[in-house]
Amino acid sequence: MTTITSTQNPHLKTLKRLQTKRERARSGAFLAEGEDLVAAARAAGRPVLEGFRVAGGANLDAGVEDFFEVERSALAAVSSLGSGSRVAAVYRQLWSAPTGPLCVYLHGVGDPGNVGTILRAAQAFGASCVALGPRCADPHAPKAVRASMGAIFSVPIARVAGPADLPGERIALVADAPGALVGDRDGDVTLLVGAEREGLPEDVVAACERSARIPIASESLNAAMAATVALYEMTRQASRVPAS
Amino acid sequence: MTTITSTQNPHLKTLKRLQTKRERARSGAFLAEGEDLVAAARAAGRPVLEGFRVAGGANLDAGVEDFFEVERSALAAVSSLGSGSRVAAVYRQLWSAPTGPLCVYLHGVGDPGNVGTILRAAQAFGASCVALGPRCADPHAPKAVRASMGAIFSVPIARVAGPADLPGERIALVADAPGALVGDRDGDVTLLVGAEREGLPEDVVAACERSARIPIASESLNAAMAATVALYEMTRQASRVPAS
Repeated sequence: MTTITSTQNPHLKTLKRLQTKRERARSGAFLAEGEDLVAAARAAGRPVLEGFRVAGGANLDAGVEDFFEVERSALAAVSSLGSGSRVAAVYRQLWSAPTGPLCVYLHGVGDPGNVGTILRAAQAFGASCVALGPRCADPHAPKAVRASMGAIFSVPIARVAGPADLPGERIALVADAPGALVGDRDGDVTLLVGAEREGLPEDVVAACERSARIPIASESLNAAMAATVALYEMTRQASRVPAS
Repeated sequence: MTTITSTQNPHLKTLKRLQTKRERARSGAFLAEGEDLVAAARAAGRPVLEGFRVAGGANLDAGVEDFFEVERSALAAVSSLGSGSRVAAVYRQLWSAPTGPLCVYLHGVGDPGNVGTILRAAQAFGASCVALGPRCADPHAPKAVRASMGAIFSVPIARVAGPADLPGERIALVADAPGALVGDRDGDVTLLVGAEREGLPEDVVAACERSARIPIASESLNAAMAATVALYEMTRQASRVPAS
């Protein structure tokens, strides 16, 4: 296989275009950069549509043998990681239906780093799905994919129009709710998380079966921290006895 | 007061230099950029050593009347926020002794965003102190200050050489500890958190009274998420009855 040396190579141009939301929406594909993410995709059994590796890159992981070889400077020029880039690959986006038993719904969480971190927390605590409502960041944006630390490949992700589409008992996380979140549940549950400053809109809260707060001393947690703590609360009792 | 128009102005040069760790260490000062952080400092009663505001900036918060006026382009040139910068101010670093009842110790947490997020979590859950051990990021770095969302001004921060300096019962958070963290405590407690990949070194774990894990399904949480969940676990029982 010949080494790609020009950033005008059509494969590399596709790679670069996938950094835009428009091209991701058009193609239904997305990009993972770096060996850890590519290894996470492989572990999740996700096929590579097109793979790229730096020419002469010593000590690359196994599994990239059939990737295009790309001259270091050309790969750096199209990568969001810049000069440290050694491996990148294109994957198909997979979207799921919103499913229980433990779904997390995000409303207006516009920061891709927060969306990715929540995917990671969903994986860490065994959530069944992350459902994205209006005005959320694209979970396949490079920054979200990186923050997910590979969870983008294993956590089911759904797009929904609003709370009516969510499974099970819907619990709105609201800073001033009278009762704290308590993680005992019988059936399916969806936790609803809003944006950092705005929180959840009133009509979304009103559509839920109940609301709950996370007990904190100061004003706010960001969406990722709130979701992480809520998932912990909902799952911790499965793995140990409550403190006496 | 005349408007500063040159980036060579000595006050502005000081501001810019405070973006380096070297200058922060030399001067014992640090920089907060943006109206939210300056407001958080004011709410915490922290005096401004030098303040800067964009010339002609309409709708600026109260409390910046005696700040230097700076031409927009000059302020943008010295700010880590770039062209959106409207307000910046210099403060004195305050360091505390490591104190209970609930201290968080970080070991080798090198990412300033994680350190700042942990400060924020410490504020949210009412921790008494964040103690920084070897190879931690500077909590006064601009990225840490921003991630703290103002907690840098209210949470006591200590520098310690290692676990021997920490208050109360020391609990090492370790991914493969046999028992899960349980938040019942009588006296002072320090939670010890390591870096994302390395975790805590063996000698640090050995110095602790006990170790505990956070029950998660996947391999790892980052340091900020682990600290957030651990603080939640240690404080949630103060504010509600356990689930039955």
